[in-house]
Amino acid sequence: MNDDEHSHSNRMEATVRELLTEMKDASEAIVDLAYASLMYNSRDMADKVHEMDDDIDNMKFEIRTKVIMAGRSKEDARDMTGVLQVASAADRISEAAGEIVKLLDVPKEERPFINEIINESDEKIMMIRISRRSDMAGNTIDQLAVEASTGTKIIAMKNRYGWIYNPDGDVKIRAGDDLIVNGSQDGFNRLKKFASGDCPWEFPEAESEEE
Amino acid sequence: MNDDEHSHSNRMEATVRELLTEMKDASEAIVDLAYASLMYNSRDMADKVHEMDDDIDNMKFEIRTKVIMAGRSKEDARDMTGVLQVASAADRISEAAGEIVKLLDVPKEERPFINEIINESDEKIMMIRISRRSDMAGNTIDQLAVEASTGTKIIAMKNRYGWIYNPDGDVKIRAGDDLIVNGSQDGFNRLKKFASGDCPWEFPEAESEEE
Repeated sequence: MNDDEHSHSNRMEATVRELLTEMKDASEAIVDLAYASLMYNSRDMADKVHEMDDDIDNMKFEIRTKVIMAGRSKEDARDMTGVLQVASAADRISEAAGEIVKLLDVPKEERPFINEIINESDEKIMMIRISRRSDMAGNTIDQLAVEASTGTKIIAMKNRYGWIYNPDGDVKIRAGDDLIVNGSQDGFNRLKKFASGDCPWEFPEAESEEE
Repeated sequence: MNDDEHSHSNRMEATVRELLTEMKDASEAIVDLAYASLMYNSRDMADKVHEMDDDIDNMKFEIRTKVIMAGRSKEDARDMTGVLQVASAADRISEAAGEIVKLLDVPKEERPFINEIINESDEKIMMIRISRRSDMAGNTIDQLAVEASTGTKIIAMKNRYGWIYNPDGDVKIRAGDDLIVNGSQDGFNRLKKFASGDCPWEFPEAESEEE
């Protein structure tokens, strides 16, 4: 293999790796979002689940194509088989999310059981509004390190522009935003104190200050 | 329906609900555990994944039997269809976990990609040891409210008696225990300070003290 071919193969790898990381992340978020759509009876969220399901499906085919086109050595082939296997697992999980959101077609009052189960499980899904008094407002999700500080993960949020699903760390939280989070009851109680403004946010120490 | 039949049907419901909640919780834990088995090349964990996969399969069949035997009214039937659908989704997720652990058959050095992907994804999996200096030692997971306080979830732990998977809240953490957690990098950094004893644990305020 000459240098050109080698760098070509490395580029392939980077893309397959990026795609697979995205698939794995999406497959974890989509199940939460599917349950949240039932909890809040949200057709919007269910549509997003279908859209993500399609994206995951497309990524799976893209990965397959790239793996085949890469025409790799025998040694790499086992790793690539592993990649296909994880991709197929992520796809299967997203299909499960698709099954869950189908329940939205059953009117909410005819599926009391389902909401009870989501309420009773270890990982709960809850909605909370950011108060004007909360010092969370005006900061990004990364600045707040919401998950590390409260143990809850923002799976969707609604701000003045509309819904954002599985928001990135650089999304800014503002007063009046509704967050849909999942986590334990303890974590939710903690978040509630901050979101209401009853407790000041404990900003994580900046790494530079420690040095 | 007379009172006897009604209470019989309520008992059925309670059991179906309990089973389905357990299935949902297990289906969320099993995927984490499957990725952790690859990260730590652990045959033990992979065996536990297979065991949980079997349990979930059995619960699915038990739920189906109970739903059919309950012989319900038309109104309840839609809710029960929903139950079967969530059960089937949970089962599908556990099958995906089974696919992931199959990769353990590929020697670790022949699947470098997979570990990189788990490392690069939003939800990371990490192992940490509880130091003698840590005041986490001697407290239960619930007392510490680990998830709410650090944003990391304990998916497995190894203590002097062996491995515990998806540990309950009443499990006590002791010096020398190894915890396998998942969560964000920020959450892990936070946990590390507590586990090493560099920072005192911030015990959640007891609810009674607030009143």
